[in-house]
Amino acid sequence: MKLLRVGPPGREFPALLDDTGRLRDLRTVVDDLDAAFLAADGLARLAAVHPDDLPVLDDTGLRTGPPLRPGKIVCVGLNYRDHAAETGAALPAEPVVFLKAADTVVGPDDAVLVPRGSTKTDWEVELAVVIGRQARYLPSTQAARDCIAGYAISHDVSEREFQLERGGQWDKGKSCETFNPFGPWLVTADEIPDPQDLRLRLWVNGVLRQDGSTKDMIFPVVEVVRYLSQFMVLYPGDVINTGTPAGVALGLPEPKPYLAAGDVVELEIDGLGRQRQTLAPA
Amino acid sequence: MKLLRVGPPGREFPALLDDTGRLRDLRTVVDDLDAAFLAADGLARLAAVHPDDLPVLDDTGLRTGPPLRPGKIVCVGLNYRDHAAETGAALPAEPVVFLKAADTVVGPDDAVLVPRGSTKTDWEVELAVVIGRQARYLPSTQAARDCIAGYAISHDVSEREFQLERGGQWDKGKSCETFNPFGPWLVTADEIPDPQDLRLRLWVNGVLRQDGSTKDMIFPVVEVVRYLSQFMVLYPGDVINTGTPAGVALGLPEPKPYLAAGDVVELEIDGLGRQRQTLAPA
Repeated sequence: MKLLRVGPPGREFPALLDDTGRLRDLRTVVDDLDAAFLAADGLARLAAVHPDDLPVLDDTGLRTGPPLRPGKIVCVGLNYRDHAAETGAALPAEPVVFLKAADTVVGPDDAVLVPRGSTKTDWEVELAVVIGRQARYLPSTQAARDCIAGYAISHDVSEREFQLERGGQWDKGKSCETFNPFGPWLVTADEIPDPQDLRLRLWVNGVLRQDGSTKDMIFPVVEVVRYLSQFMVLYPGDVINTGTPAGVALGLPEPKPYLAAGDVVELEIDGLGRQRQTLAPA
Repeated sequence: MKLLRVGPPGREFPALLDDTGRLRDLRTVVDDLDAAFLAADGLARLAAVHPDDLPVLDDTGLRTGPPLRPGKIVCVGLNYRDHAAETGAALPAEPVVFLKAADTVVGPDDAVLVPRGSTKTDWEVELAVVIGRQARYLPSTQAARDCIAGYAISHDVSEREFQLERGGQWDKGKSCETFNPFGPWLVTADEIPDPQDLRLRLWVNGVLRQDGSTKDMIFPVVEVVRYLSQFMVLYPGDVINTGTPAGVALGLPEPKPYLAAGDVVELEIDGLGRQRQTLAPA
């Protein structure tokens, strides 16, 4: 299933994109797509509903919001060989982990705000994993697989000066307002037979800047979930941003083409749809 | 006002501790103490209620939960001169910022779990600031003062190996299950005339380990709020852990007395009450 949330910011309601590309209204079936929905096995309930029995929505002028209200967002840094190399970092021996404020999540086509005083706002296309079942001290990657509800595109927008030159802990450059465009869809795991064979691409003003594959992850998705569960509990509705491939502004020659108001960023991952944001001043 | 939430984990309800030390039931007045309550100016509504008009609660056997369901938890590292010195860190030129998963919050007297594989579970008594109004690019510390709803005790439990020796980003050692005992009370700002003159103490098995004062903060509370608002939006219900004074296990001579199952930690801050946790295996 491809699930989404549509409507004005803060007043989104759940919908489903059917196999013919039509939008179906889920309001009669579920309240919202959030932690409570996933914890109550909402996906199984939805899978039992036939899309043809749901009202068709007119999508004219309808905004797409984030497909889920996440619990926490856990990020893995330097999880692609080529990206670790371009930033000058050594290959990590185990996942580098940081958090991103869940209130940074916006819709896939919403404006991204360049923070005041920022000169190094950067892009990062990432495969997001959505947790469907509690993950706590998982014994194996197979157990981890069972905890994954689905996948989405995350844009892990990053301010490199705030992240790297203002005290050393990365969170300061990761949790700025609007810094996590998410969606358009939450695609359930059954539709992504191999999460380690997805092409990820990102364009800035039409120029292809990132063109990677999840094949090149150092720690694959199921290992990331298993690993994280040794350090924290992952709950239904939590999201993991699994790292970005090479091609970010930080890794390009001087003068590095950091983002400015007016720039347009587009992102795409196989099977997960497409995002398009215009940068604006905060 | 001293506000709290009492009842079994996950089913707490709001209460008030009146000036005579009696517990008053707030269920007839508010649904819960959370972001929505603070955003809707719930504190002003409560202040208009006379405690004598509220039913007295029998507190026999009643568990105290966290006094608020926080949004995000933002932490300031190395914010006391003596603690920076004991960890061997230079005095920070500006606040060091990291995040802690809000789902680590437990009641002030709940068990704290030593993570599996942990040999360096450490304590940190901290003054927590609760945000009452949205803080976004605040122009001054005076504006920051107006965004503070109140204060509480936070125990910022930390696993030092996970934090410092497993990739370098601190979050990995800060977000383990049960790692943020919080409360007992949310004390409204009007009851804390000077947040920079509070004594903080922490005992382990009856031995006084931390005995500091918020006078020794490098960045005072209002500066922390003003500063953070330049990098992220703080929303009603967000919590800031403002750093810990000297005396943590990490700063003591070898063999460092890290926490183990069975240990008892007690924490106290002037005017904010007292916590008491027993360590248990995860």
